[in-house]
Amino acid sequence: MIGSGAEYEERAEAVGRLLAGEGVSVVTGGLGEVMAAAARGAKRAGGATVGILPGESRAAANEWLDHVVVTGIGLARNLAVVASGDAVIAVGGRYGTLAEIGLALTLGRPVVVLEPGWEVEGTLRASTPDEAVELALAAVHTS
Amino acid sequence: MIGSGAEYEERAEAVGRLLAGEGVSVVTGGLGEVMAAAARGAKRAGGATVGILPGESRAAANEWLDHVVVTGIGLARNLAVVASGDAVIAVGGRYGTLAEIGLALTLGRPVVVLEPGWEVEGTLRASTPDEAVELALAAVHTS
Amino acid sequence: MIGSGAEYEERAEAVGRLLAGEGVSVVTGGLGEVMAAAARGAKRAGGATVGILPGESRAAANEWLDHVVVTGIGLARNLAVVASGDAVIAVGGRYGTLAEIGLALTLGRPVVVLEPGWEVEGTLRASTPDEAVELALAAVHTS
Amino acid sequence: MIGSGAEYEERAEAVGRLLAGEGVSVVTGGLGEVMAAAARGAKRAGGATVGILPGESRAAANEWLDHVVVTGIGLARNLAVVASGDAVIAVGGRYGTLAEIGLALTLGRPVVVLEPGWEVEGTLRASTPDEAVELALAAVHTS
Repeated sequence: MIGSGAEYEERAEAVGRLLAGEGVSVVTGGLGEVMAAAARGAKRAGGATVGILPGESRAAANEWLDHVVVTGIGLARNLAVVASGDAVIAVGGRYGTLAEIGLALTLGRPVVVLEPGWEVEGTLRASTPDEAVELALAAVHTS
Repeated sequence: MIGSGAEYEERAEAVGRLLAGEGVSVVTGGLGEVMAAAARGAKRAGGATVGILPGESRAAANEWLDHVVVTGIGLARNLAVVASGDAVIAVGGRYGTLAEIGLALTLGRPVVVLEPGWEVEGTLRASTPDEAVELALAAVHTS
Repeated sequence: MIGSGAEYEERAEAVGRLLAGEGVSVVTGGLGEVMAAAARGAKRAGGATVGILPGESRAAANEWLDHVVVTGIGLARNLAVVASGDAVIAVGGRYGTLAEIGLALTLGRPVVVLEPGWEVEGTLRASTPDEAVELALAAVHTS
Repeated sequence: MIGSGAEYEERAEAVGRLLAGEGVSVVTGGLGEVMAAAARGAKRAGGATVGILPGESRAAANEWLDHVVVTGIGLARNLAVVASGDAVIAVGGRYGTLAEIGLALTLGRPVVVLEPGWEVEGTLRASTPDEAVELALAAVHTS
């Protein structure tokens, strides 16, 4: 799950909880806001979580991660975040999220944008967390 | 300069030529299509060119480069391409270009999109190569 | 755990099993030989495993991983492998392992070399898997 | 050219000057100490220089560079430094240099160590800057 923006945390937490309910691991960038919210939602529902950090130490990791990957490569870790998922769900997000959407589509990963969010041709659009998870799972099963 | 698409090569070559005329080095991803065209335009106008390659060897480099940087980091080299410029001009482009626009804006680099191209809030829009170069130079001088 | 060389698989598997017995997650480069052996040892002992792959797909991952991180950055993923551990244990290894030892020491991670292996000033030396795990745990607790 | 250590600057400057005299571009990590010294030696002899920086801005670049590549990937830029050369000369150096030697050898780049320096099997050994440049050029021509 990718994205950013404090105002989207509730939706991100719902996405994390729903993914965990489907037995799917939740991979994020490992920091705060929607990344922490998605991991929290997944952990509280008994799911597995991985955070892929930009820096050289795990100090910035949120507290809801089973595994912390410390990449040391800054923004280039965005590539690892989207490449590690079978599908990508975008919740909110600024320019970093746009970059991740572009990278995910370059790699052929299905991308679901939970509206409101970036409008990019080739992404699937969802209006609720339930619909986002449903579309992501369906995209993985048919790809 | 970033971008892709064989149909945009003429415009990319013009951008390269104009940048060289302003004494500006042209940095691209070092491969073919618009990357080669921009470098060719710059070299033919006596300018300096750098190509930043994704792979582990220089074999894929186009022939118009003064300096070839071999990164070995795949798509993550896109970060280096946009970070190395004072400003970024996008000509054509698919999802990789969208990712680069997102990264450039994340880093605070001014981005000029030569239309037609990705429509992203926060980018400057140009309808001709001359206008693109003019906007890019102006953005660097005021930033 | 880092390293390479088919002849070191038995020792790598023992290291993985011992780390799992201590409740420690095993992070490797996710491919074959000692990376697979260490993960296999950990999984068979009920431990947790993470593999950090160089390529853009998970196809190359071994079968003993709880979580696969797909970085897309080639050899630069070696930085993520060593940065993600609290300590690093090297088993066997060629030049890639030497690079990882250098990166780990640059980042201040304690490095234990299970002999025979690269001789680098600043590393701890162990002659058995038990001693390697013991030294690594002790180094983490005192750092 | 790779390496570090203020006490090796004179030798690094000689290496840069000699490479420039042979018409060879000098690529370094772009920061201070031996990296700046090598670039200074090359520029003063009329040569071409490229610096490949770890951070997200060019502020840290030394003043002797024709082209500055800003990678944003931290220590992972070491891969780009060694991959971009046809051969690698190591002058002085701490653990980061050891990592670069390991990466260069992994990629099959010839490595010359100007003594005193890391002792790594598979590297060529030189006792003077002249010998280092001579060995590097010979290795490129026969590879």
